[in-house]
Amino acid sequence: MTLAAKSAVETADVIVGYKTYVKLVESIIKPTTETCSGVMGKEVERAKIAVAKALDGKNVAVISSGDPGVYGMAGVVLEVATLENANVPINIIPGVTAATAAAARLGAPLVSDFAVISLSDLLTPWILIEKRLNAAARADFVIVLYNPQSEGRKEPLMKAYEILLKYRKPETPIGIVRQVGRRGEETVVTTLWGLLGCEVDMATTIVVGNSTTRVVGKRMVTPRGYNL
Amino acid sequence: MTLAAKSAVETADVIVGYKTYVKLVESIIKPTTETCSGVMGKEVERAKIAVAKALDGKNVAVISSGDPGVYGMAGVVLEVATLENANVPINIIPGVTAATAAAARLGAPLVSDFAVISLSDLLTPWILIEKRLNAAARADFVIVLYNPQSEGRKEPLMKAYEILLKYRKPETPIGIVRQVGRRGEETVVTTLWGLLGCEVDMATTIVVGNSTTRVVGKRMVTPRGYNL
Repeated sequence: MTLAAKSAVETADVIVGYKTYVKLVESIIKPTTETCSGVMGKEVERAKIAVAKALDGKNVAVISSGDPGVYGMAGVVLEVATLENANVPINIIPGVTAATAAAARLGAPLVSDFAVISLSDLLTPWILIEKRLNAAARADFVIVLYNPQSEGRKEPLMKAYEILLKYRKPETPIGIVRQVGRRGEETVVTTLWGLLGCEVDMATTIVVGNSTTRVVGKRMVTPRGYNL
Repeated sequence: MTLAAKSAVETADVIVGYKTYVKLVESIIKPTTETCSGVMGKEVERAKIAVAKALDGKNVAVISSGDPGVYGMAGVVLEVATLENANVPINIIPGVTAATAAAARLGAPLVSDFAVISLSDLLTPWILIEKRLNAAARADFVIVLYNPQSEGRKEPLMKAYEILLKYRKPETPIGIVRQVGRRGEETVVTTLWGLLGCEVDMATTIVVGNSTTRVVGKRMVTPRGYNL
């Protein structure tokens, strides 16, 4: 967590967020602060509540895990505020997104160009996700996969695996981090071939190395071209 | 800055870093802490100093701006430590990388899949950078450009501009942030066509919208597909 995010939570009159995320910051929320927590899938509703409370003169903090601008609440809050002509100042506080948090646990796989792709096809058509997977794999980007699979959505990861194998060797290092930065964090460095044998859920971030990524010690490193 | 990074700087016996970055954290370095600052291009040398000091039993903090794992020092430190068989614990603390810091200033351009590409061809062959620009633009990724140009290196941005124009409309929103999070920060939201008229240097981050990115209010937003 950044100092700026901590301060925003501590000084807010109202905290709005998905209930799991509100719980994560519970210990720094003042007892007098109102909290509006909600369920996954109700992002628009939460953005509307936040804008309404701000129009009431409250200092509102909308929280996301990681960075609010990476598949987070920043966009929908700006869109709702504009749609409602709400003349309230909106300050977006960047955070540590799962890609770089996971990378730090794994070693240094992102010290080169990388692409971030969500495998959730709830809000993005699968055909576009597939196109991006192909493009990123072909151009040798390190690839970070968000939302790789859930209880009811196993197919995207299977398909992604097949696409990646068209361009990357089976022994390409990959890293899998569950619950990064949270209680129960788990980190695995394996190979592309090992991917499907690993436990993967919505709270998992997968980093797929490029053609130069190596395992150094027990960690993944993508060399940057320095002369060592 | 994250709480973890602040604590690492505050408790270090030795701080190693590029001199500009050491200056940025000067105010939180203890007077008793040794600092080893150096110039750009001497990354391997700094990593060696850091590893040597750690082998001497010192608690060393190697600093990068943004996130040390994104074009930062994390990789070279791990590689040097392994090469020298240095048995010292290395803890990588993730940070807020320029892509998401700039995005927060610009609005919410990264609430969809994105690719991060450095235009510096000092350590990566230009042909590979070009391949990645084409791939990312063709597959409609939002694209974040790091190290876009310097005094002596103007051609890459010109070439990138031409590649982007092959796939994106001239009126595609782009955002330009200089010195993000530092004194003298400047933010411009313009169009792809306006790019070459803007001031761009090594401390600039450029965010190129995808085909759906819009200007909402005065900010860039890439919609996530929510039903508003």
